[in-house]
Amino acid sequence: MGTLMTTEASAPTSAPTSAPLAAGPRRPSLSAGVRPLVDALVGQADALRVAVSTGPLGCRIVDAGVAVPGGLEAGRRVAEICLGGLGTVTLVPSTRFSPWGTLVSVSTTDPVLACLGSQYAGWSLAAGDFFALGSGPGRAVAAVEELYGELGFREESADTTLVLETSVVPPEAVVAEIATRSNVAPERITLILTPTSSLAGTVQIVARVLEVALHKAHAVHFPLEHIIDGIGSAPVAPPSPDFLTAMGRTNDAVLYGGDVQLYVRGTAEAAQDLAKRLPSSASRDYGRPFAEVFGGYGCDFYKVDPLLFSPARVTVTAVEHGVSFTAGGFDPVLIARSFGA
Amino acid sequence: MGTLMTTEASAPTSAPTSAPLAAGPRRPSLSAGVRPLVDALVGQADALRVAVSTGPLGCRIVDAGVAVPGGLEAGRRVAEICLGGLGTVTLVPSTRFSPWGTLVSVSTTDPVLACLGSQYAGWSLAAGDFFALGSGPGRAVAAVEELYGELGFREESADTTLVLETSVVPPEAVVAEIATRSNVAPERITLILTPTSSLAGTVQIVARVLEVALHKAHAVHFPLEHIIDGIGSAPVAPPSPDFLTAMGRTNDAVLYGGDVQLYVRGTAEAAQDLAKRLPSSASRDYGRPFAEVFGGYGCDFYKVDPLLFSPARVTVTAVEHGVSFTAGGFDPVLIARSFGA
Amino acid sequence: MGTLMTTEASAPTSAPTSAPLAAGPRRPSLSAGVRPLVDALVGQADALRVAVSTGPLGCRIVDAGVAVPGGLEAGRRVAEICLGGLGTVTLVPSTRFSPWGTLVSVSTTDPVLACLGSQYAGWSLAAGDFFALGSGPGRAVAAVEELYGELGFREESADTTLVLETSVVPPEAVVAEIATRSNVAPERITLILTPTSSLAGTVQIVARVLEVALHKAHAVHFPLEHIIDGIGSAPVAPPSPDFLTAMGRTNDAVLYGGDVQLYVRGTAEAAQDLAKRLPSSASRDYGRPFAEVFGGYGCDFYKVDPLLFSPARVTVTAVEHGVSFTAGGFDPVLIARSFGA
Repeated sequence: MGTLMTTEASAPTSAPTSAPLAAGPRRPSLSAGVRPLVDALVGQADALRVAVSTGPLGCRIVDAGVAVPGGLEAGRRVAEICLGGLGTVTLVPSTRFSPWGTLVSVSTTDPVLACLGSQYAGWSLAAGDFFALGSGPGRAVAAVEELYGELGFREESADTTLVLETSVVPPEAVVAEIATRSNVAPERITLILTPTSSLAGTVQIVARVLEVALHKAHAVHFPLEHIIDGIGSAPVAPPSPDFLTAMGRTNDAVLYGGDVQLYVRGTAEAAQDLAKRLPSSASRDYGRPFAEVFGGYGCDFYKVDPLLFSPARVTVTAVEHGVSFTAGGFDPVLIARSFGA
Repeated sequence: MGTLMTTEASAPTSAPTSAPLAAGPRRPSLSAGVRPLVDALVGQADALRVAVSTGPLGCRIVDAGVAVPGGLEAGRRVAEICLGGLGTVTLVPSTRFSPWGTLVSVSTTDPVLACLGSQYAGWSLAAGDFFALGSGPGRAVAAVEELYGELGFREESADTTLVLETSVVPPEAVVAEIATRSNVAPERITLILTPTSSLAGTVQIVARVLEVALHKAHAVHFPLEHIIDGIGSAPVAPPSPDFLTAMGRTNDAVLYGGDVQLYVRGTAEAAQDLAKRLPSSASRDYGRPFAEVFGGYGCDFYKVDPLLFSPARVTVTAVEHGVSFTAGGFDPVLIARSFGA
Repeated sequence: MGTLMTTEASAPTSAPTSAPLAAGPRRPSLSAGVRPLVDALVGQADALRVAVSTGPLGCRIVDAGVAVPGGLEAGRRVAEICLGGLGTVTLVPSTRFSPWGTLVSVSTTDPVLACLGSQYAGWSLAAGDFFALGSGPGRAVAAVEELYGELGFREESADTTLVLETSVVPPEAVVAEIATRSNVAPERITLILTPTSSLAGTVQIVARVLEVALHKAHAVHFPLEHIIDGIGSAPVAPPSPDFLTAMGRTNDAVLYGGDVQLYVRGTAEAAQDLAKRLPSSASRDYGRPFAEVFGGYGCDFYKVDPLLFSPARVTVTAVEHGVSFTAGGFDPVLIARSFGA
């Protein structure tokens, strides 16, 4: 009898002679999860062409593309660090958008925890002229964002790591704030700098394709505890030294080239509604390259429709009902226009 | 001179001054191969959202989707455990079946050993109302199946692991049977439970795309020792809480969406004949969703044509002759109908 | 505020209050990089179906496809060894060339170092009837090639590994030459043999798709220090026992099926010029299967246009200007003719 011919159907739905199954698993530590990844990034700094130095208050700075080349692989590693050690990021050849032949593919052991609990760049760090958004497990240790109340957790750790989308080393005041909020000594804080214009920055931003889907699901009030899994992909955008162009392209990679599959609990109607609302095409600002949309609003982020930030295509499967709903689609013409060539 | 311009042609076919090459390699231990994978699954249980508990007679139970969510990554890990530590299973974005954007890709260091010697769910375990098929290295330790006589091996091990496609914990009688047949103490047996309706179950079943090709090659009497390598892929089906629908979809993923490449020894004619007979389209039951075929036979597996269980498309290369033969093809319409959305 | 809505633009271009970034990274050791990979290849020899033996002067021989089957996974491992431990090689399902469903995908932490400093098969090893090209970190230890002067490095190592595209064990004189040139004791030299006709040979040759792009960039005098990253892919060709056919197919996989993306410094014009010159289609010998081209020149490699050896399609991004240029394209008809089936 073949493997595919299982007769599990004949099994009873309860097994009185068997031991009870254990209760649901506890939450893994994001800080512990990234430690081996950060150690590897630092230990292989020469090979990855990132630079490790001591920064303000003795913190550790990993430059992944400011004064050093970094690269796609450095970005892939940083993306896995952003995911709190709970995700896999791969670079995959694809025919989705010719000639842009490489996709970033993202999967996780637990998407809500990995993407919202860690990867989401939700911690605003500012001092003087400096501003950057922090991503990674350090967010969960500080837990200054309202989101952690909703997620219902925070963690303690003797060390922590944050990824900052910036091209400058943060000033002492920012490091001090991180240390205070996290209750971690500055010299045990690692800050990884990934400029948007760098290759590493491009990869780690595009690797947010799954995260933006979860974030938008949250924004449209879908219960996060109903999201049990997800997987996503988006094309590697060509970088640009112009910040606005680089940011525009990485956004377009997701908004017009990103694909996400979510697996959710709850009713079929809720899944269908989520699928309908999730894709970028559900936004009033959909249809033009992001840099153009942004420019049209006078470069004021707060005027851009927040619902624009989501993948081009989304498929939602209601696992308790076995039905799936797809909405949105890729826009290869816009990708060509945004990426050039 | 470029790398691609090798002049190996000028080398003699024998090298009298050189040492003789060693004899062919010995068989690796499947049980030893999975140990680090099982340890990692258990050690990262929280992150993978699987639950570890003590079952009948002190055996270890890993629930990968009954009372806990598990997920795609848990399924990917379980699939590699099924392969006896000799295979790589990856989740890859693909345009093969829109909008079903993820393929499971399977390769091994030795397909006959990994797929038939370990992954094939060939051990029928039944007691009272309980029935499940066992997969994984524990099969080779017990070697109760006729297949092991043909493969010409069995192995001894102080511990063992079986993957069971079931949604219930097996009763004491089944654990006792495994222990006796394997000569392994119950408390050193790990049983991983993957319901067909779970995400982990879906991934680990679809990851059998290469195995079903080998199993059918065996069924049509192609000499297994002539199969030297293979690689396969099939789409991740959306799960369903209905067992019949879930089973139907995972079968359809392989039968109408699976692709396998085999590399074989022997004559070109034998390779051509194998290619012709291998694809699912060579079966009288080909053409309808599996759940429908199965229903049409009154849900009696033994009435389904066993030759249906094979990939949609197969390419066989006769490596001693350098010729290849392809047969079968994908059926995107049927995949759409089976998967929904 | 969403992750994608970074306002890095508002950051100053210098940060006077911050610590200076460290200088660029130093060069990693290729020999140290491959050590764990070679240890794993040898340690898992049984599973990978490669054979380890003692060769002339006590060197270690790893047969990856002469008297033993080896396979795709052995080839994948050997390809990563060729890359000096600085690259990732994966087998990926793809629709690029039906029914040839598997691509070899190659990325590195540093393409010039990994591909030219290690992977390029540039060391001609000959004695008596024996001739083979050496690839891998052993080249950097011996540094007998002019290229190392241009690359500006060589390395010292107490052990070393070379991959030889050959089907015979090299004679004592060749081992002695390697030992002398490398200043490494023969018994600490590992020689991995991958015949062009073997599966492992096929994979490790096709995995040179990125390397040939870099080598041609060098040949057309593009400054190597301007190449900051790259990624490539090409289809796995079906092997053939006929050396000429096997060599022809692996070449065709790259010349008519290979895709490379390069990221370079320098002017947009230089990037455009590189893109124009790089693809195989820029060669006078483009358009026929390689075996036919080679045969047409009486099997004299030195008559083949060296500019033919490059990927089918190349996209070059000038990272300092944010513009990209694509040239060339795939030839599925020629691939079908070359690969058969």
